[in-house]
Amino acid sequence: MDILDIIEKKKKGQKLSSEEISFFAAGYAKGDIPDYQASALLMAICINGMHSDETAALTKAIVESGETLDLSGLPGIKVDKHSNGGVGDKASLVVVPMLASLGYTVIKASGRGLGHTGGTLDKLESIGGLVVGMDMDRLMSIAERTNALICEQSPMITPADKKLYALRDVTATVDSPSLIAASIMSKKIACGADAIVLDVKIGSGSFMKTLEDGQALAREMISIGTSTGKKVSAVLTDMGQPLGYAVGNALEVIEAANTLKGSGPGDLLEVSIELASTLMASVGEDKAAAVEKLIGSINSGMAYSKFVQIILAQGADEVYADNINLILEPRESVVLKAREGGYVYITDCEAIGKASLECGAGRKQLGDTIDSSAGIMMHVKNGDLVSAGDPVATLYSSSSDKLEIALGLLDGAFGYCQAKPDAVETILGTLS
Amino acid sequence: MDILDIIEKKKKGQKLSSEEISFFAAGYAKGDIPDYQASALLMAICINGMHSDETAALTKAIVESGETLDLSGLPGIKVDKHSNGGVGDKASLVVVPMLASLGYTVIKASGRGLGHTGGTLDKLESIGGLVVGMDMDRLMSIAERTNALICEQSPMITPADKKLYALRDVTATVDSPSLIAASIMSKKIACGADAIVLDVKIGSGSFMKTLEDGQALAREMISIGTSTGKKVSAVLTDMGQPLGYAVGNALEVIEAANTLKGSGPGDLLEVSIELASTLMASVGEDKAAAVEKLIGSINSGMAYSKFVQIILAQGADEVYADNINLILEPRESVVLKAREGGYVYITDCEAIGKASLECGAGRKQLGDTIDSSAGIMMHVKNGDLVSAGDPVATLYSSSSDKLEIALGLLDGAFGYCQAKPDAVETILGTLS
Repeated sequence: MDILDIIEKKKKGQKLSSEEISFFAAGYAKGDIPDYQASALLMAICINGMHSDETAALTKAIVESGETLDLSGLPGIKVDKHSNGGVGDKASLVVVPMLASLGYTVIKASGRGLGHTGGTLDKLESIGGLVVGMDMDRLMSIAERTNALICEQSPMITPADKKLYALRDVTATVDSPSLIAASIMSKKIACGADAIVLDVKIGSGSFMKTLEDGQALAREMISIGTSTGKKVSAVLTDMGQPLGYAVGNALEVIEAANTLKGSGPGDLLEVSIELASTLMASVGEDKAAAVEKLIGSINSGMAYSKFVQIILAQGADEVYADNINLILEPRESVVLKAREGGYVYITDCEAIGKASLECGAGRKQLGDTIDSSAGIMMHVKNGDLVSAGDPVATLYSSSSDKLEIALGLLDGAFGYCQAKPDAVETILGTLS
Repeated sequence: MDILDIIEKKKKGQKLSSEEISFFAAGYAKGDIPDYQASALLMAICINGMHSDETAALTKAIVESGETLDLSGLPGIKVDKHSNGGVGDKASLVVVPMLASLGYTVIKASGRGLGHTGGTLDKLESIGGLVVGMDMDRLMSIAERTNALICEQSPMITPADKKLYALRDVTATVDSPSLIAASIMSKKIACGADAIVLDVKIGSGSFMKTLEDGQALAREMISIGTSTGKKVSAVLTDMGQPLGYAVGNALEVIEAANTLKGSGPGDLLEVSIELASTLMASVGEDKAAAVEKLIGSINSGMAYSKFVQIILAQGADEVYADNINLILEPRESVVLKAREGGYVYITDCEAIGKASLECGAGRKQLGDTIDSSAGIMMHVKNGDLVSAGDPVATLYSSSSDKLEIALGLLDGAFGYCQAKPDAVETILGTLS
């Protein structure tokens, strides 16, 4: 088999065979195929697309480039959740303990913050002592005690994806639904879950800007799942404004903890319940019954207990088990006031993520240190009526210079209109 | 300027600005832009194409990546000729001396054999003593004496093209009319001619298989010429069978010499006269008068004298000035006989080039030594009537094993039909 013939075929828009795709993915992972040939093929894929069979074959080949987790020794149904990233998206911190408290096993590999979007690992690390990087022995030992954990992905999992992702990032070949779907699904499949729910966030705070693009991505991923015998479902959710009110690492952990205690924001609870119940329905539970069970797990305190159990198992200092609010350290702060009166609507949710990053909650480049207490507390939601001068958000940072820059960015994200805007649903649809 | 934005634009099928194209070509030549980004852009160009403005800008940028020849100190109008390569294509060896004998200056940089097609430099080197590689001083010193020479291109000319060409070859991004045109025209422009004629060969013995593709390539190149103030014209010629009868290095030189003496094959003379007269017409001569002058240069012996003067100036041994036939050394040979009676038609001209290569006339890989006396003498042309067993070609090689393989290949290139096939014109069109 010759890589040039494979590139030539895709250049002409022809369909590649599973063998050809596997030859490429394995050869690239091993270093037999150089970057310049891989990038030519990736560009041809971006422009000419891939059939769902090809996407499934690529996913399979990426999975086979590395190790896969064997969760068969763990009890219960193994489930997983993925989000394509958003602003204030702490749903994993709510969904994982809820499901675990109901007997599901959730071994969730998460990521770091990327651009304007936060990362679950960065959020968790705002809890002193907590460790997200671990070897397989530690992972299995924790999982046996807690039936859930949230950790960094092992470098032995899907090495081809790591190489491909790094190359796509520097060759303008990121935005192909097939390549995105194969990248996400290969990692989820290699992590051994039987059922996966995808939170496809759509809107100005997500990388996915339109409902059509989100639906296409969801369909690609569900199709891959079907072809590999995994139960995959997707919930399309609004990312036109932050999820909940908190944006920033410690702020978000506290908000998630509050939600698990039954006193969180309505939209975060709604998204978390929809994701978890969709997942439970995909493995045969009645969805309405699943919703009841999930709400029960919060009301009974089981979900929050599971959260505490998980963070302690991952090394969190005991003090946070009693009072999670202690993870937030005092910071300089400034209040953003409404420029004018009217109904609030967020015109640019990505700018809120960027403002939080400016506060110190994210990385501008690899290796930057994160200020875990930095971030933004929103005080309003789209459609709330405010008067000029009302506080609409508070920004936190260790530096007043950073606050100044962030304040200007954040102000630009807010619009005020005189007519009450149409309400946007938080849940835009469910696909399975 | 960011190369990722440039790749992104072309991925979306948008037009690049001259500045963007120049940033890419200069950056790639200097090594600031890595291969994997260049190959992604080349693939996007292959699939989404380039506007003629973009092709012209790329050509200009490639020219500017290196040195350009200054021919202003030499007498006469500076002209050049290019062929996209074929089987038995020795027209340069006829056209250059003819034009030089009429007072034109022709500094022609030529290439080596590529795949099944021969290269003018390999052909010339079958003349003992002759040198094709030379520095600028020697080039100008020869040019002042002979007003013509055929040499290897200096590595200082269009270095960006060399790098791009090598990359295209290993990333399946060769067959873009824009990239082909920019590659050819940049070299011609950098070599300083005022007027250039292009021999666009079409058919089974050329890289250009259809008339439409050939016309598109010719138009691209003429458009580049117009945008750079060069007079560019193109002749589309048939490459469904070898040009003339000789295929192989020494064999072709002898056939070209015979043509310059007035005793060559009709099709080779026709193509050479058409190319030279089209070029002369492009710089203001009346075409019919040009044809008369060219025929006169042969009949008067001026063209052949110029040929001898050029090869001697480039170092050819004196003995070949008196008898060029001496360059052909005795070889093993075998005669291919007609499998059946009928009208000859070549079904696969590329196979004739490959058979010649098998005889030892070309390189299978870089660094292979060429057997300058190896090759094929065809005895028939398309449409000739033969009886079964008539000799249709003689193959020459230093090895009988090679002859055996070549004979089989060559036999497969011949067809015999009972109805006289329609004659195919040698000259398929002229564009300017």
